[in-house]
Amino acid sequence: MNSSKQSEKNMKNFLFGIDIGGTTVKIGLFDLDGRLLEKREIPTRTEALGKYIMSDIAESAEKLLSSKNTDWSSAAGIGIDVPGPVIGNHYVTRCVNLGWKDIDVSKEMRVLTGVEDIVVVNDAKSAALGEWWMGGHEDCRCAVMITLGTGIGGGVILDGRIINGAFGGAGELSHFPIVPDETEPCACGKYGHLQQYASAEGIVHQFKKKLRSEKKLSVLSDNDHITAKDIIDAARSGDEPAKKIVDDAVKKIAQTMAMITSVIDPELFLIGGGMAEAGDFLLNAIREEFHRLVLFVSENARVELAVMGNEAGIYGAVKSIMNCLKDKNTQC
Amino acid sequence: MNSSKQSEKNMKNFLFGIDIGGTTVKIGLFDLDGRLLEKREIPTRTEALGKYIMSDIAESAEKLLSSKNTDWSSAAGIGIDVPGPVIGNHYVTRCVNLGWKDIDVSKEMRVLTGVEDIVVVNDAKSAALGEWWMGGHEDCRCAVMITLGTGIGGGVILDGRIINGAFGGAGELSHFPIVPDETEPCACGKYGHLQQYASAEGIVHQFKKKLRSEKKLSVLSDNDHITAKDIIDAARSGDEPAKKIVDDAVKKIAQTMAMITSVIDPELFLIGGGMAEAGDFLLNAIREEFHRLVLFVSENARVELAVMGNEAGIYGAVKSIMNCLKDKNTQC
Repeated sequence: MNSSKQSEKNMKNFLFGIDIGGTTVKIGLFDLDGRLLEKREIPTRTEALGKYIMSDIAESAEKLLSSKNTDWSSAAGIGIDVPGPVIGNHYVTRCVNLGWKDIDVSKEMRVLTGVEDIVVVNDAKSAALGEWWMGGHEDCRCAVMITLGTGIGGGVILDGRIINGAFGGAGELSHFPIVPDETEPCACGKYGHLQQYASAEGIVHQFKKKLRSEKKLSVLSDNDHITAKDIIDAARSGDEPAKKIVDDAVKKIAQTMAMITSVIDPELFLIGGGMAEAGDFLLNAIREEFHRLVLFVSENARVELAVMGNEAGIYGAVKSIMNCLKDKNTQC
Repeated sequence: MNSSKQSEKNMKNFLFGIDIGGTTVKIGLFDLDGRLLEKREIPTRTEALGKYIMSDIAESAEKLLSSKNTDWSSAAGIGIDVPGPVIGNHYVTRCVNLGWKDIDVSKEMRVLTGVEDIVVVNDAKSAALGEWWMGGHEDCRCAVMITLGTGIGGGVILDGRIINGAFGGAGELSHFPIVPDETEPCACGKYGHLQQYASAEGIVHQFKKKLRSEKKLSVLSDNDHITAKDIIDAARSGDEPAKKIVDDAVKKIAQTMAMITSVIDPELFLIGGGMAEAGDFLLNAIREEFHRLVLFVSENARVELAVMGNEAGIYGAVKSIMNCLKDKNTQC
């Protein structure tokens, strides 16, 4: 290798943004300005407590580097998001969807790759950052994303950074205690959390409970495998029990947004996740109720659908490591 | 004047922290490190739509400078807090307690003093910053102060800065929509805001309403001029109707705190204001209910009484201008 090639090789020109989901891992190779160069998707091997996941990722990412005629020595940093809480931007105590327990993700990745600068973030927070950045909202100083999927995810972006909070609980909107007097527990053991009413699982649960307790007739009464989509579709067609449940979910999402406003007063709410595919039907209902509830001064806050879909994660992950590299003293 | 005196005079060695209340204005003269050098208090002349307030302040502040043998040319900056919402760190559209309407406070002060760098902040936010700074919490990255007085004030401190939000509504805890289904309006015209239940005025209002509607007997039934202190004292002595109202206020404050935690997950809550003088009785009840409700990960968040009392305002005001001078590009 001649010396010019050698020096090119030693330059750290690449970044990775890696989005680890319960089914697939998305791996993006980026340049230092966060432009996506290549992308791969591999299955998430959750067997054996997910012990192959990290090495699978390292192997696959290395292939992306090989395709650029280089290796790990040219990687300036790696941003990783995981479907669970992250402590101190590197440690996962428990990640049910991956089978993980007590893993220092940064340390493992460092051992596998030799890359020093690694940051690990929660997937919903990463999606929020990716959506803010690549969804065209970079001029917005404060944005909150609510991901309405099987569960609920949240992310608070302030001045281009994810807010983690003192104990990593910032933006934990799945467990936003919207009904403090609830007697039925959330999966976490506490009570009355937003996901109990407004996640896809929550909507199905509340709907079945309503049919059982009130013996109401619904077009879905004979359907054993009801999904949130079925219920939203039924609500849209005017089915009364379905409408009640969807209205209640909308109300609680909007209430949560109005409460968030009294704390950090964001300029923009982004609604993402599978349930957002119901599009304007849900969005307009959420907007209307939010504007009814929110402080007068903040009535101009925008409520928009997220547009980045599945790609938000890798962008948020790479933006997280870009933030870390930019200012190692600031929260990533 | 010799040249050394001249150059000493031209050095900008002083800062002002000014806390404008509805009854008095506190004016602090500080050095550039935020050490209080002198303090004065003058009455707030609210007559004639408060048009004398600014010139009274300028006159009084100038006397403090004279006592140091100098004048406005040695003032590096002025931080001012006011009892109302502030737009863009300088503009007040309405400040009921001062009689003000549509005043550019920074501009007026600049005309009166010739000082270029001036920042105006809300008084509750200023108190939060002052309390965080001088109350011994500078190592705490995120703190929220709740001021329980006649009304309710709030302030969110992140990395040593007040969070204002996109529309100035961040930390607006008086209007935290804690009971979205309330039918009785708040003074602002919307419904179910924290101050309707948990401010001194709110507690008195709820208590009187309870006595009227339930015709319950209370030790306070014959008292026409009930104060929140009377009700808290009665609750402490076991008076059932008073206890119900105080318990409800405590619950709603703790619920708000748990909700705030799901958004920004602060390390510390500071409880201040006149009602905090009930001390451990209220504080312990709030702590207990908060810990019952809050996310497991954030159970170690601390809940403390504010200690700076009336001085928090001038310290927060001077810290605000110090922040502005330190980094004019960052939120003050």
